Amino acid sequence: MTSVITLLTDYGLEDGYVAACHGVIVGISPESRIIDVCHLVPSGDVRRAAAILAQTIAYLPAGVHIAVVDPGGGSRRAVAVEAGSHVFLGPDNGVLSWAVHASGGAKAAYELANEDFFRRPVSPTFHGRDVFAPVAAHLTVGRSIAELGPEIPLERLVSLPAPTSLVREGVVEGEVLSVDRYGNTQLSVGASDLFTLGVRPGSTLVVWLGRRQIAVPFRETFAAVPPGELVAFADSAGLVALAVNSGDASQRLGLPPGAHVRLSPAPSSG
Amino acid sequence: MTSVITLLTDYGLEDGYVAACHGVIVGISPESRIIDVCHLVPSGDVRRAAAILAQTIAYLPAGVHIAVVDPGGGSRRAVAVEAGSHVFLGPDNGVLSWAVHASGGAKAAYELANEDFFRRPVSPTFHGRDVFAPVAAHLTVGRSIAELGPEIPLERLVSLPAPTSLVREGVVEGEVLSVDRYGNTQLSVGASDLFTLGVRPGSTLVVWLGRRQIAVPFRETFAAVPPGELVAFADSAGLVALAVNSGDASQRLGLPPGAHVRLSPAPSSG
Amino acid sequence: MTSVITLLTDYGLEDGYVAACHGVIVGISPESRIIDVCHLVPSGDVRRAAAILAQTIAYLPAGVHIAVVDPGGGSRRAVAVEAGSHVFLGPDNGVLSWAVHASGGAKAAYELANEDFFRRPVSPTFHGRDVFAPVAAHLTVGRSIAELGPEIPLERLVSLPAPTSLVREGVVEGEVLSVDRYGNTQLSVGASDLFTLGVRPGSTLVVWLGRRQIAVPFRETFAAVPPGELVAFADSAGLVALAVNSGDASQRLGLPPGAHVRLSPAPSSG
Repeated sequence: MTSVITLLTDYGLEDGYVAACHGVIVGISPESRIIDVCHLVPSGDVRRAAAILAQTIAYLPAGVHIAVVDPGGGSRRAVAVEAGSHVFLGPDNGVLSWAVHASGGAKAAYELANEDFFRRPVSPTFHGRDVFAPVAAHLTVGRSIAELGPEIPLERLVSLPAPTSLVREGVVEGEVLSVDRYGNTQLSVGASDLFTLGVRPGSTLVVWLGRRQIAVPFRETFAAVPPGELVAFADSAGLVALAVNSGDASQRLGLPPGAHVRLSPAPSSG
Repeated sequence: MTSVITLLTDYGLEDGYVAACHGVIVGISPESRIIDVCHLVPSGDVRRAAAILAQTIAYLPAGVHIAVVDPGGGSRRAVAVEAGSHVFLGPDNGVLSWAVHASGGAKAAYELANEDFFRRPVSPTFHGRDVFAPVAAHLTVGRSIAELGPEIPLERLVSLPAPTSLVREGVVEGEVLSVDRYGNTQLSVGASDLFTLGVRPGSTLVVWLGRRQIAVPFRETFAAVPPGELVAFADSAGLVALAVNSGDASQRLGLPPGAHVRLSPAPSSG
Repeated sequence: MTSVITLLTDYGLEDGYVAACHGVIVGISPESRIIDVCHLVPSGDVRRAAAILAQTIAYLPAGVHIAVVDPGGGSRRAVAVEAGSHVFLGPDNGVLSWAVHASGGAKAAYELANEDFFRRPVSPTFHGRDVFAPVAAHLTVGRSIAELGPEIPLERLVSLPAPTSLVREGVVEGEVLSVDRYGNTQLSVGASDLFTLGVRPGSTLVVWLGRRQIAVPFRETFAAVPPGELVAFADSAGLVALAVNSGDASQRLGLPPGAHVRLSPAPSSG
């Protein structure tokens, strides 16, 4: 059996930090397979990391998934959470919570307290290398999650508040969840919520940005409108995204992550 | 046998997009070996992706090579092209064409129409994850290319126009094909074309930029001139490159990708 | 046995350069395991590459470690150096020297002269692909280091001067060794040197920047001070680092790599 370990961090790619984690894993578990989920999470941006992991987890094999974005340094507990066919490892600051939810919810959680699984001495500022990487590796070579430390009542795990997403009186409210490399602006609004309001590919949306209202065609893909034009579509995570074909919607609309947005069907729209 | 799958995209590294592709591949083909060719192709730049793949393919093992740079979204056919010991997968927009040519030309091509090999539902905006990754993985675990869909007549495959490269009356004309991290400016001119004109390492070139003429030494490597000086050399892809030792030739000369350049031997040059 | 090969370069990630190296390795040694240490070393920055490798090597498995940062192009000898359980490959310009030292010092060194192990023709500007990658791969499939070429007397290997680090009269002098993605400013001063001066977590340091003196708390981690405040700590490499919790110390203090810094215990500090 291939044992998969995935890594999500804000370490960046300009140093040897990620390689040190890989090296520690390979030293303990030479046959494991490592997938780098992302290492360019903006420094300390726990919500962004949580969103990336939650939107990627359905496509990752059963395995051990490490997420280390940890603005508080080591001053919180480190946990292992079982959910679906996965084990998630990370600081207990909510970074795992959306992916755990997307995987069907936590079945059990443990505090990483057993230092036998750590690489020692443990640097207070590099738990990725000295705590999470070796613990993950040991889990792929036969050690059990229950050996990691005391069990934690599930209700005591830290959860991030879910992104705003509210349907009322024919309007969906949400926020900008993320902006990707293309400038595509992903909202915290499920495409299914729009469908509830009667919006279908081919319809027109009204996007409310503060007092501004903008009519935006809702299509199957950004490429359904001419280059340079705004469009909304259900993105590859099933969420509503605003895009400019061959352009940057986030910049055009002035919508950074966290910005508030309301959507409604255009009056004439089906 | 190790089954190699390579990936070339414009997805960037700031999201989980690449990892989702890796995850889908590993889920189907746990023993496959994935090589990331590049994920920082400028968004939608099909020519740049085609050039990278064409210049790298000779160094990649026999395998399945995915290239997804697809400014038109899903609104074109997806294809598999056999060439040399390789199978290339990508949108039929020309992104594969230079690498196919560099591999000896297409032997057969198929439309990716058999949805049994897709991950469903297929997102209209993420064929890398839902079409190309799973198809590649299935090819490495025993499925045959002929199962993917109907065969396509080779003359109907989309090809990118080859970069300008013309030798006449003692002058070679070309364009800037790419600029690398060092600012080295790669021209669409084979070093062999210069040799035809009698240029040899040790000679001097005249580089014509519009009306400007610049004398540039032609050497074996950029390091043959003092730091800060311009030099031309046959680069690692066999093309003529302009460089500044420890500097940025693209910036110095004002030569972005696509810019027109003429080269000729300096009068006194052998 | 898994054979590990690691790669450290300044090739960047915007081209197919790194993939070409991977491809050459996999073609020769299909079962090898490749770890990318870093490819974003600033172009030509030999000291930065040396520091990254030296600080990462303790966490990498026994294997063959390639480091190619080579501002002089091919105009220097290429070497293999045995140290500890590792073989280091790179240009003989000092890039390997700090990691070799950190691994217990060189036991033997060889010039890469045997072209049977090269990929030919060898591009004068891409020894990573044509010299170092194939040599590393051959070493993992049973060829011996002594076959690579003539042995080199150890005292003739090029070494980088060690970073300044001097303790005298109650003051430690050093320089900025590197600045990471967070703006954390790593000094060439071992935490043990501070301990010698009586500084302990909880103490206060005086940081001398030219004529300025700044009092900085010395703590176990950057997170021990409120967001926005300066702190010094022993980083994950055992060196003294200056940081701003959730901020950028390098920018705040105007301290680029190479800048000179002096540290002393604050008068009242224990």
